[in-house]
Amino acid sequence: MISDNQPCVILVNPQLAVNIGMSARAMMNCGLYQMRLVAPREDHLSERAVSAASGAEKILFDAKVYATTAEAVADLEKIFATTARRRDMIKIVNTAEAAAAKITSGLNENIRCGILFGPERTGLHNDDIVLSDEIIEIPLNPEHCSLNLSQAVLLVGYELYKKQISVPETQLITNKTKPAPKEQLARFLAYLETELEEHHTFRSDEKKPHMIRNIRNIFQRMELTEQDISTLYGIINHLAGKSNRHK
Amino acid sequence: MISDNQPCVILVNPQLAVNIGMSARAMMNCGLYQMRLVAPREDHLSERAVSAASGAEKILFDAKVYATTAEAVADLEKIFATTARRRDMIKIVNTAEAAAAKITSGLNENIRCGILFGPERTGLHNDDIVLSDEIIEIPLNPEHCSLNLSQAVLLVGYELYKKQISVPETQLITNKTKPAPKEQLARFLAYLETELEEHHTFRSDEKKPHMIRNIRNIFQRMELTEQDISTLYGIINHLAGKSNRHK
Repeated sequence: MISDNQPCVILVNPQLAVNIGMSARAMMNCGLYQMRLVAPREDHLSERAVSAASGAEKILFDAKVYATTAEAVADLEKIFATTARRRDMIKIVNTAEAAAAKITSGLNENIRCGILFGPERTGLHNDDIVLSDEIIEIPLNPEHCSLNLSQAVLLVGYELYKKQISVPETQLITNKTKPAPKEQLARFLAYLETELEEHHTFRSDEKKPHMIRNIRNIFQRMELTEQDISTLYGIINHLAGKSNRHK
Repeated sequence: MISDNQPCVILVNPQLAVNIGMSARAMMNCGLYQMRLVAPREDHLSERAVSAASGAEKILFDAKVYATTAEAVADLEKIFATTARRRDMIKIVNTAEAAAAKITSGLNENIRCGILFGPERTGLHNDDIVLSDEIIEIPLNPEHCSLNLSQAVLLVGYELYKKQISVPETQLITNKTKPAPKEQLARFLAYLETELEEHHTFRSDEKKPHMIRNIRNIFQRMELTEQDISTLYGIINHLAGKSNRHK
């Protein structure tokens, strides 16, 4: 569940309606709903913005518009500024991931956070960065780090989203079937080996143990489910010209 | 440094030239340069594609085009498929971060990897997913997880980039100046306290130690640099109507 206590995404002087709309879409992808706009050049409720929002237009309709950055951050308690290049300023610089951790733990203590994103071509003005407590620098290829506005919003939002959920890093999706118990796998392997024996697969008694070990390893590392094993019985039986006598 | 041994970004049946171009830009943001295209509907060298690439057009010019996904993956050894929704398939599903770790360690062992991205509206066809070894599911708001093609490329590329670089999570950027030695901070605090004493700031002797402790804590947590301290001396001296007698 995403908490209502969320950081505000603050777009400072965004130039293009389409980028405001795409930023709303990126916010919704990451479960963020609070957008603030500082003196946008184009209308954030124009058809182009709403169409680019692609289902996230509610964020545009709910967005608050301010004349200055100072007004947009006035009721917030901790401000992060996103920058692509180093400024001549003494500030704490965070990766997006580190900032996401700080924002999330701030929110847990009811500290209202805002994240500033600058206009498309120039990025944030130094006077806006001064209004921030810390800087976010997204780690990207230094030879080509200019991001589309909505992509900067997406990457910061993505790191925030990752802090709020817990998803297993890796899982085997088995749908209705379950990973096979080892006993079932062993029974299947024994059946396979008997069939191979009957079909004279093991030409030399000397090499047989090694071949069997290899075969077992192949099937062992497949992480077979019950359904997989049933499928494999079918394959073997059909290849061997038998009806599906084992299940 | 980004190694030449890179995963291939494989766009399967991309529909719009602008999305191919934006994907190239996202790849370059993440230091990825090998693009493969399976039967793109629009020309990846069209003006719209090149313009959307916004400086990453070399990736488009170098991209290889294939008629089928099977041909596009033929010379690769490990394939990941990106999906937004669960399919009725028994496969290992990874977060983008977990997949990035696997791809990176695969590359370290010279295992050539490819990452499949499906067409804009429909995502990858099941027949393409079958050609993959594992699945990547980017963790996003389940109520709104449809991503623009280039944003999916960006998020996977970003996770890959993060695995290849080491950036300090948090750092204080001080430019030419250094964090002040504690001795300098102590000297400054003593100076400040003397000035405050002279200006009758501490009204009661009883409360003075507590007030001093609070003041010290304020300046202590500022992580002041040598330049900051010099600036603060200036402020105090000007407020007190003195010339800059301490440095």
